Amino acid sequence: MTNPFFKNHGPFTISEIVKSLGFKNIEKTDLNSTILNENNKVLDIKDLYSSQENEITFFHSKKYKDIAKNTKASFCLTSETLKNELPENCFPIIVENVLLSVSKVTSKYYPDSINDEFDNTVIEIKNSKFQDKVRYGKNVLLGENVSIGDSCAIGHNTIIEKNVSIGNNCSIGSNTIIRNTLIKDNVKILDNCVIGKHGFGFFPMSDNNLRYPHIGVVLIEENCEIGCGSTIDRGSISNTILGRNTFLDNQIHIAHNVKIGKNSIIAGQVGIAGSSVIGNNVKIGGQVGVSGHLKIGNNVEIGGGSGVIRDIPDNSKVMGYPARSIKEFLTENK
Amino acid sequence: MTNPFFKNHGPFTISEIVKSLGFKNIEKTDLNSTILNENNKVLDIKDLYSSQENEITFFHSKKYKDIAKNTKASFCLTSETLKNELPENCFPIIVENVLLSVSKVTSKYYPDSINDEFDNTVIEIKNSKFQDKVRYGKNVLLGENVSIGDSCAIGHNTIIEKNVSIGNNCSIGSNTIIRNTLIKDNVKILDNCVIGKHGFGFFPMSDNNLRYPHIGVVLIEENCEIGCGSTIDRGSISNTILGRNTFLDNQIHIAHNVKIGKNSIIAGQVGIAGSSVIGNNVKIGGQVGVSGHLKIGNNVEIGGGSGVIRDIPDNSKVMGYPARSIKEFLTENK
Amino acid sequence: MTNPFFKNHGPFTISEIVKSLGFKNIEKTDLNSTILNENNKVLDIKDLYSSQENEITFFHSKKYKDIAKNTKASFCLTSETLKNELPENCFPIIVENVLLSVSKVTSKYYPDSINDEFDNTVIEIKNSKFQDKVRYGKNVLLGENVSIGDSCAIGHNTIIEKNVSIGNNCSIGSNTIIRNTLIKDNVKILDNCVIGKHGFGFFPMSDNNLRYPHIGVVLIEENCEIGCGSTIDRGSISNTILGRNTFLDNQIHIAHNVKIGKNSIIAGQVGIAGSSVIGNNVKIGGQVGVSGHLKIGNNVEIGGGSGVIRDIPDNSKVMGYPARSIKEFLTENK
Repeated sequence: MTNPFFKNHGPFTISEIVKSLGFKNIEKTDLNSTILNENNKVLDIKDLYSSQENEITFFHSKKYKDIAKNTKASFCLTSETLKNELPENCFPIIVENVLLSVSKVTSKYYPDSINDEFDNTVIEIKNSKFQDKVRYGKNVLLGENVSIGDSCAIGHNTIIEKNVSIGNNCSIGSNTIIRNTLIKDNVKILDNCVIGKHGFGFFPMSDNNLRYPHIGVVLIEENCEIGCGSTIDRGSISNTILGRNTFLDNQIHIAHNVKIGKNSIIAGQVGIAGSSVIGNNVKIGGQVGVSGHLKIGNNVEIGGGSGVIRDIPDNSKVMGYPARSIKEFLTENK
Repeated sequence: MTNPFFKNHGPFTISEIVKSLGFKNIEKTDLNSTILNENNKVLDIKDLYSSQENEITFFHSKKYKDIAKNTKASFCLTSETLKNELPENCFPIIVENVLLSVSKVTSKYYPDSINDEFDNTVIEIKNSKFQDKVRYGKNVLLGENVSIGDSCAIGHNTIIEKNVSIGNNCSIGSNTIIRNTLIKDNVKILDNCVIGKHGFGFFPMSDNNLRYPHIGVVLIEENCEIGCGSTIDRGSISNTILGRNTFLDNQIHIAHNVKIGKNSIIAGQVGIAGSSVIGNNVKIGGQVGVSGHLKIGNNVEIGGGSGVIRDIPDNSKVMGYPARSIKEFLTENK
Repeated sequence: MTNPFFKNHGPFTISEIVKSLGFKNIEKTDLNSTILNENNKVLDIKDLYSSQENEITFFHSKKYKDIAKNTKASFCLTSETLKNELPENCFPIIVENVLLSVSKVTSKYYPDSINDEFDNTVIEIKNSKFQDKVRYGKNVLLGENVSIGDSCAIGHNTIIEKNVSIGNNCSIGSNTIIRNTLIKDNVKILDNCVIGKHGFGFFPMSDNNLRYPHIGVVLIEENCEIGCGSTIDRGSISNTILGRNTFLDNQIHIAHNVKIGKNSIIAGQVGIAGSSVIGNNVKIGGQVGVSGHLKIGNNVEIGGGSGVIRDIPDNSKVMGYPARSIKEFLTENK
């Protein structure tokens, strides 16, 4: 489940959906008339992998060809050139700009997921049901739909906005803001962090960019630690994930949809751009930047200051800008 | 107008000014006796471009030769080697260290612009005239000389310090601090930002650096967005400007006097050093650094991780450290 | 004195210490029986340089050979290969992982130094003895064992947690958090900083990293300035130090045990990794990264964007990644 927190305003019929994209209607041939039956409701929008029958998905890059072939979705927003990769159960809806259409459809299902205005549902923790359960500082605020486990501490001026679940034995610092985030047991989040805000995702438009929805969450597994001044954005249509026992130093930025494995160690001021996937037991030195949509394998070590612009296979040690074999980098730069 | 917020303690006579610089007096020749007339008041200090008659300006680098030739200022702090570039209407005052003298004169006119101690004029928004007009969180503070348009939201613990104007339909996050800033309509500023503080400008002195004044503001045009944990310093003697519909990701630092055009997109952890000018429709990847006093043209794309140390012409795509043609960078680093 | 703030739970006998490391006992030969006398108390754990008779120290790298030869400590946690460098007065205790053992022994002496949960001893400054002495904003909190000199200002929502000493004429901004820090006269710390939290120091363990103690402080000498959004971690077993009149721009991260000399200037978004030592009169450009355990000499200039991975001698000008002679860097990259 990628969107436990946002209210699904669906279902909608496929006609309603195609009209919201600006089409008059989809052409009905004998072949697709059953699929396009007005009474068939489309329940939700999800990614290629997790979508099910009676749901709509999207397919915008050859990179996802293999997943597309096996999608269970009944409908798919895609392009003329990609449509033939879809299986028979999945009806292609050809659009000019796939991601823009995804944004429009997602906004239809989840209108509350676009803006991140401050949470006006908060109350002071001392007036909440957690007043006797949690160790807390001055001026702590809690929003709606927040749960907190046993033996937790929350520091001064911290705001746990709506849609946050905190496990047992967690320690949250001061001046930190969290929303739309699932936190497992024994997690430490230090001071001045912002966790769970929407990512930097929008369609550039002349004079007025169009934001796209972020219906994902941030998922922080057991025993993680997040340093002071870090920001972790929630996912757009999937989740942002930190694996078990992964430690982040200060001033780190993790963008939307990034997935980091377990037992990884990330030093100060690192930035990881959107949708990149980092393996287990990965060590990343200070100020490293990782471009978006990359795959960094397991047991990888990335030297401090590196700029990673290509995938990195398991068990590699890399350094440099662009990052390459650390041996090569050090030999070239003796 | 570069300094709408700081009270001008002038005018001063030119004699008062030259004495405050440690000179006994300026030599009076027949030629300059009229200009140096004791009764002529010097109204203000401004940059070469915007200064007018009966104002003083400064000229410290050949780079500004063409602007100097046309200045309307009556006086100019400058050096022996540059003075001949000035027009006849402008009387050169030769000093050893131009910028240091600028600092001294500016401090004379604007003594309140040097220190940025916390604003002790603030009151809680619930006790202000904005209590019914603005959607606001807990513990929001407003300083003197603040205006807020229609349909605005201000998050928890945010401090709008003195001298801030906010347009219509703006959303300010939580834990954010703003001062000396003009914000147009439809602007979003997210959490944990600091906007409008003085820049990192001072004269290094043994054991006791001398801060110079920052009489500029931050000007944020319509439809801009500024990500969490970003800092934007106000200008020293000009303004720091973000053009219409320019979007900034998280943890960005924009130094004093930087001017960014419209429709630009700047990814996370970028830093732009003082007085650089960025064009329209510019795309800057994550963690890019731009040195000070550079000119980046329109429609430029700068790849993530780049370090820009030279001007970049319009329509270029660059990457690397130092940044060069992106084609070249990628070919060299296949 | 590296640990003025943490209560020393010692002394312990050497038997208690070796047992806490998992040994049954240290083998008693005629030679060492005097030293291992049960009644000899071990008073404290310190580094090689500052430890005295009846104290225990540690020696884990050849790099510290010369200091090791002259240590006054009575005991030293070390390895088989290093033990012969120690003087006669110092009895080697051979362990498999020196730093892990240091961590265990330090935790025994200073159990309070491992976790950095929010300070629950704080009270509002308006209810403290400083209510008439300090200029302060709304919602300022002060912990136990805080002292504040004359003519100081503390901004809104700032938390001076326990164990902080502030000199005269200091200005602390808003939304800033400080603990375990000694601040001399005329220091300015701007908004949204976190100073004095434990560093990013732990032993990686499968599924559950082991944090090591941080018993050091942050020491900020006279006339320093620290920009908005910066983080400075306290030392683990030594201190983190900023020398007199050193200025830091915004969004800087200074890791544990770093020592920076006087009159140095560090531009925005710089990161300095743990235990590096920076000299006097050093200028560091924006976004520079300095690896851990390096020595940067006096009067060094480091160009913006550089990645420093080796020691830099006095009076050098360097740039690049890795940083090398700036002349070389600019010639190569014309």
